[in-house]
Amino acid sequence: MILTITLNMALDVTYHVETFEHGHTTRVGKVSRRAGGKGVNVARVLHELGHDVLVTGLAGGFTGRAARAELRAAGLRDELIEIDGQSRLTLVVVDREGSATGFWEPGPVVAAPEWQAALRRCSELAASASVVVLSGSLPAGVPADAYAQLVAAATEGGVPALLDADGEALALGATAGPAVVKVNASELASATGEHEVQAGARALRRAGARTVVVTDGAAGLTCFADQGVLHAAAPEVLGGNPTGAGDAVSAALAAGMVAGVPWPERLAEAAALSAAAVSAPQAGSFDPDVYRQLRTTVQAVAV
Amino acid sequence: MILTITLNMALDVTYHVETFEHGHTTRVGKVSRRAGGKGVNVARVLHELGHDVLVTGLAGGFTGRAARAELRAAGLRDELIEIDGQSRLTLVVVDREGSATGFWEPGPVVAAPEWQAALRRCSELAASASVVVLSGSLPAGVPADAYAQLVAAATEGGVPALLDADGEALALGATAGPAVVKVNASELASATGEHEVQAGARALRRAGARTVVVTDGAAGLTCFADQGVLHAAAPEVLGGNPTGAGDAVSAALAAGMVAGVPWPERLAEAAALSAAAVSAPQAGSFDPDVYRQLRTTVQAVAV
Repeated sequence: MILTITLNMALDVTYHVETFEHGHTTRVGKVSRRAGGKGVNVARVLHELGHDVLVTGLAGGFTGRAARAELRAAGLRDELIEIDGQSRLTLVVVDREGSATGFWEPGPVVAAPEWQAALRRCSELAASASVVVLSGSLPAGVPADAYAQLVAAATEGGVPALLDADGEALALGATAGPAVVKVNASELASATGEHEVQAGARALRRAGARTVVVTDGAAGLTCFADQGVLHAAAPEVLGGNPTGAGDAVSAALAAGMVAGVPWPERLAEAAALSAAAVSAPQAGSFDPDVYRQLRTTVQAVAV
Repeated sequence: MILTITLNMALDVTYHVETFEHGHTTRVGKVSRRAGGKGVNVARVLHELGHDVLVTGLAGGFTGRAARAELRAAGLRDELIEIDGQSRLTLVVVDREGSATGFWEPGPVVAAPEWQAALRRCSELAASASVVVLSGSLPAGVPADAYAQLVAAATEGGVPALLDADGEALALGATAGPAVVKVNASELASATGEHEVQAGARALRRAGARTVVVTDGAAGLTCFADQGVLHAAAPEVLGGNPTGAGDAVSAALAAGMVAGVPWPERLAEAAALSAAAVSAPQAGSFDPDVYRQLRTTVQAVAV
């Protein structure tokens, strides 16, 4: 089982409207509500790939319950930990021209005992996982070294961790020795202070990350590991939706960790799945035809 | 006990933002969530006035549960009837300049057996009420004569009904003999086809309404009854929020029906409470100082 941990679970709501105007009221045509957060997207992709995946993290309030109900309806197992605060809601209003106007509600504030209980429960669940994926932002009240503590708990139990975080959470998390850090170029720069990708990846590896995979949009993925540096890129997908492409990369890397796939194939697979995710309209899904086609053609090369 | 029936219960959500732009994402500063719908506003005002009030109607989905939780937190008793569909959510985004941009989600579709069960339950509850207030729109799936059926059930049991509706629901509802119909001038015209208030009120009374109270914003209230025509108006409240003023009128009229207050006092009280509601920021509340002051000064006069 692959465990995905989403500490800042969300309810993602989309309103489809013809058009709307400031100061006026608009009737919404179609409403969709989905559980959100990076870890949830990773879990959706893994589930669609046929992997046994378990969703955990923090969820609270009616938004948390609605997100959980949607996860179950989508066939995903969860062991989310209930908090008193209300999980954040992200609203996107999409008009007929595809323009997206977003409103992000403030997230919950997690109490110290809630975090301690969550740390214990996540550590228990991690003990029976083959890989633990830790993704996304931290809600208020959760300590900056939350990922470091969770990575340490998994790693001490012999379970490899994949970390996808930002800022201080990433910088501290890397010191706990995650098997893989997945990061984009700007997150890498802000966490390490290094503006050159190679130097940033080296800094994270020196801090404790075993392997660092850097995503750079259509330019593809670069993997920095003991064995050297690898690069893989899929042909650019035009007019797609890049939201969730990074989560597809995490999903492919986690799947490769479970199966012990060698790094060149693992990275090529991640590049193919990422491009297939850009081809799909929603984060957490991918275009299976694009994926099937690209996974036989994309190759990783040593740099 | 005064029973308020809200067949199209809502969850009213307000986002307070500094400003927002099309095509961009805005972090929401403050979020408020309240149960909504005209009958709920009437119940809030009656509760604030110290009356024993019970909220019923149809509520479903997580929006229905959230609305119900808020009602309870506000100290209001409810016997809402659960439906499978999801209660409508109305979102208003208010910027620092007070401009309000609304998004109305589509409401639920009520199944025929749900409506039958609701009719039975509302009729049971009405039997132990002293007055029944029926307010607001009908959700899809509820028959156009829903208010007629509910008014008939209450009236046959000897309980007077106050109806605040629109269009066909009002036209049909009036035929069942409600003690009072409360209506604004444009609703009156659309329900009766009469563009003159006096003619419209006469048409509703001929159809079956015992008394008709017509609201006309700051111009005040006109009451058409067997005893003649009365008018009452409070001094205009400048810069207030007229949303919910009509619900304050219904609340005052229902309270007057319970106590058997003579019509001149009852109408003056309704005009005072309506102006006090305009002075309060939210529908379902009123400014108690304005109310105390106006109820001793506003007078109804025969027209």
